Amino acid sequence: MPSETARIEAFSDGVFAIAVTLLILEVKVPAADSGQLGRHLLQQWPSYVAFVLSFAFIGIMWINHHRLFNHIRRSDDGLLILNLLVLLGVTAVPFPTAVLATHLQTTDARTAAIVYNGMYVAVAIFFNLLWRYSLSHHLLGHEVDKASADKISKQYAGGPFLYLACIAIAWFSVTASLVLNLCLAIFFALPPAVAERVTRGRPARA
Amino acid sequence: MPSETARIEAFSDGVFAIAVTLLILEVKVPAADSGQLGRHLLQQWPSYVAFVLSFAFIGIMWINHHRLFNHIRRSDDGLLILNLLVLLGVTAVPFPTAVLATHLQTTDARTAAIVYNGMYVAVAIFFNLLWRYSLSHHLLGHEVDKASADKISKQYAGGPFLYLACIAIAWFSVTASLVLNLCLAIFFALPPAVAERVTRGRPARA
Amino acid sequence: MPSETARIEAFSDGVFAIAVTLLILEVKVPAADSGQLGRHLLQQWPSYVAFVLSFAFIGIMWINHHRLFNHIRRSDDGLLILNLLVLLGVTAVPFPTAVLATHLQTTDARTAAIVYNGMYVAVAIFFNLLWRYSLSHHLLGHEVDKASADKISKQYAGGPFLYLACIAIAWFSVTASLVLNLCLAIFFALPPAVAERVTRGRPARA
Amino acid sequence: MPSETARIEAFSDGVFAIAVTLLILEVKVPAADSGQLGRHLLQQWPSYVAFVLSFAFIGIMWINHHRLFNHIRRSDDGLLILNLLVLLGVTAVPFPTAVLATHLQTTDARTAAIVYNGMYVAVAIFFNLLWRYSLSHHLLGHEVDKASADKISKQYAGGPFLYLACIAIAWFSVTASLVLNLCLAIFFALPPAVAERVTRGRPARA
Repeated sequence: MPSETARIEAFSDGVFAIAVTLLILEVKVPAADSGQLGRHLLQQWPSYVAFVLSFAFIGIMWINHHRLFNHIRRSDDGLLILNLLVLLGVTAVPFPTAVLATHLQTTDARTAAIVYNGMYVAVAIFFNLLWRYSLSHHLLGHEVDKASADKISKQYAGGPFLYLACIAIAWFSVTASLVLNLCLAIFFALPPAVAERVTRGRPARA
Repeated sequence: MPSETARIEAFSDGVFAIAVTLLILEVKVPAADSGQLGRHLLQQWPSYVAFVLSFAFIGIMWINHHRLFNHIRRSDDGLLILNLLVLLGVTAVPFPTAVLATHLQTTDARTAAIVYNGMYVAVAIFFNLLWRYSLSHHLLGHEVDKASADKISKQYAGGPFLYLACIAIAWFSVTASLVLNLCLAIFFALPPAVAERVTRGRPARA
Repeated sequence: MPSETARIEAFSDGVFAIAVTLLILEVKVPAADSGQLGRHLLQQWPSYVAFVLSFAFIGIMWINHHRLFNHIRRSDDGLLILNLLVLLGVTAVPFPTAVLATHLQTTDARTAAIVYNGMYVAVAIFFNLLWRYSLSHHLLGHEVDKASADKISKQYAGGPFLYLACIAIAWFSVTASLVLNLCLAIFFALPPAVAERVTRGRPARA
Repeated sequence: MPSETARIEAFSDGVFAIAVTLLILEVKVPAADSGQLGRHLLQQWPSYVAFVLSFAFIGIMWINHHRLFNHIRRSDDGLLILNLLVLLGVTAVPFPTAVLATHLQTTDARTAAIVYNGMYVAVAIFFNLLWRYSLSHHLLGHEVDKASADKISKQYAGGPFLYLACIAIAWFSVTASLVLNLCLAIFFALPPAVAERVTRGRPARA
């Protein structure tokens, strides 16, 4: 018999897969023109950056979702609803990303960076809610060892505050806030055991 | 061997996942402008409300579909076709939602609210047809207890009439009809056992 | 172990699910206007008809695909490629449907109907190729009874010719060709055993 | 219990399915006009060619992905990330294809062909990284025979260089580079055992 959570995972995978695939629709083809295609293609580099960044971020969310559901084995109505909240965040990604791409080189860059980092605050909160609910309602598999679950809890706990810091930093420097945002993405892509070593300042061994 | 209904569920999950992910395409990025991004983003709040509402409604339909197919274990051609009717309703959601969002603040608000609630009448009928067909054609699993199935039947039976009431109310007050619509969404998100207690006026215990 | 064909079915289900969900993107919301919403919504009835028809046709193709893969249990590279041909037909559906919807009430109605029926000729040929290849390469499950497979072969064999007839009829009457097209859709939605009785003129018993 | 890689395959299938289905959105319906529909439909033949080519290329990538994951049975974080790289290539396909379709008959044809072939260099590199990582990290199933894996390694190894050759050839003849590109697509659609015989100049037996 499949795990109780199989259909939640299948549905979520569908949402992740679609969200990640729709991103290319935002990259526009330059109109037919006289011998200037190369230049036009290069000029729209912010579109490519936004495409690759959003792809990476949704991909990393998927890896995290995958990791959580390697531990979660039972399901109830609360889990269904909290999982929908996480997916709401996933499907919304293209919007703030497009806001950032459109306004990064304008006088609205600061507002755009705040909106962009604000979405990550929300997603980080939703992931924490999903994980803490699973813990407190005993939805993990019996074979899951407690140390592994604790490492996830620690890695996630700081998320919302770190992204709030990104918002604060954006007030002073948009570039600095986006660099920190990128570092956080890499941090959440790391396996929890490696992430723990990083935060303790020990050398990571993948 | 997987359950006979596994492929129906997989296909349906795909449709739900895509319908829910396409919703963000309706939220437009404000054009590059001079320092007015924040104001422009706030002004298009009806788009965000429509996005979140439609997400919630499709999510709740998915939870209900999931719940029904926790009971339904066999499949026949009639079930395939009635399931397609339910999915027709799911994929149509973005259209009446967009109609409502576009016209909520115009003189056409009443028409838009009637169209919007009308879609829910149809979806409620389709869900009832699917469920009653499964009961009358003995497609439930042998291990399903009758009391649990009865609770679903009761919760669903009133659906079409309650949404018809929303249409009637929209004639007098668009706001009241949308508030009732929202209450119904929450009602159908509840597990049938809790919903039963709510309708009997007893305190619900999740 | 899952059946060898499980991943083909999953991939195909994804394509069917997306093709059917993208259809709603073709139905446009009337612009905000003064009290004319009801009339504008009614005027664009051809969009709704095209949406429901395409939904029904893709749904029926999915039922047929489902039915074939209830018999097909082994896979090889030829099957992968023929299945991709069927999916090519499925994903193309929105285009000829939109052509028909846009031109049904113009002097181009005949051309549009020929294009529309032409797509069905192609899809019918692809389904026949997939099924005949599975038969001749012994890809059916051992438990499949030959009579059931023969019924499918018979139901499918006439498909391409009947849709060619639709094209010929469109030369004289667009309406008649669309009515025949609709009858064929219902015919292919029928289980093969029932379809056989229909073609023999005996009363069908579902 | 499902294989460790089941969810990776399901997610990837979703991405492939969506990428392939979105292609039809690029084929536009000619506006309602007076009796010129046939001519307008014929005039936009490059759109149909681009649709069919992209469909074929994504389909062939799917077959290759399917083939690799018939061998890969275990998963780790590195595999997740390399698989995301492959999917990044898959979702990007519609963009360079549209660039090629829009500019094939202009003075920018050479630039467009270089961009188009450049995407294939990247995808070929990503597929090689995924496969070589799986080999070096012992992620293949125990039952996989080494000869079969070696054939895949050989077929893939030349890919990036052959597509680089396409770019070089595009400098002199756009047509020749596209013909070679098409031959490579067919080469990668072949089963590795057949591909090996082709490269050795022996007659292939499917």
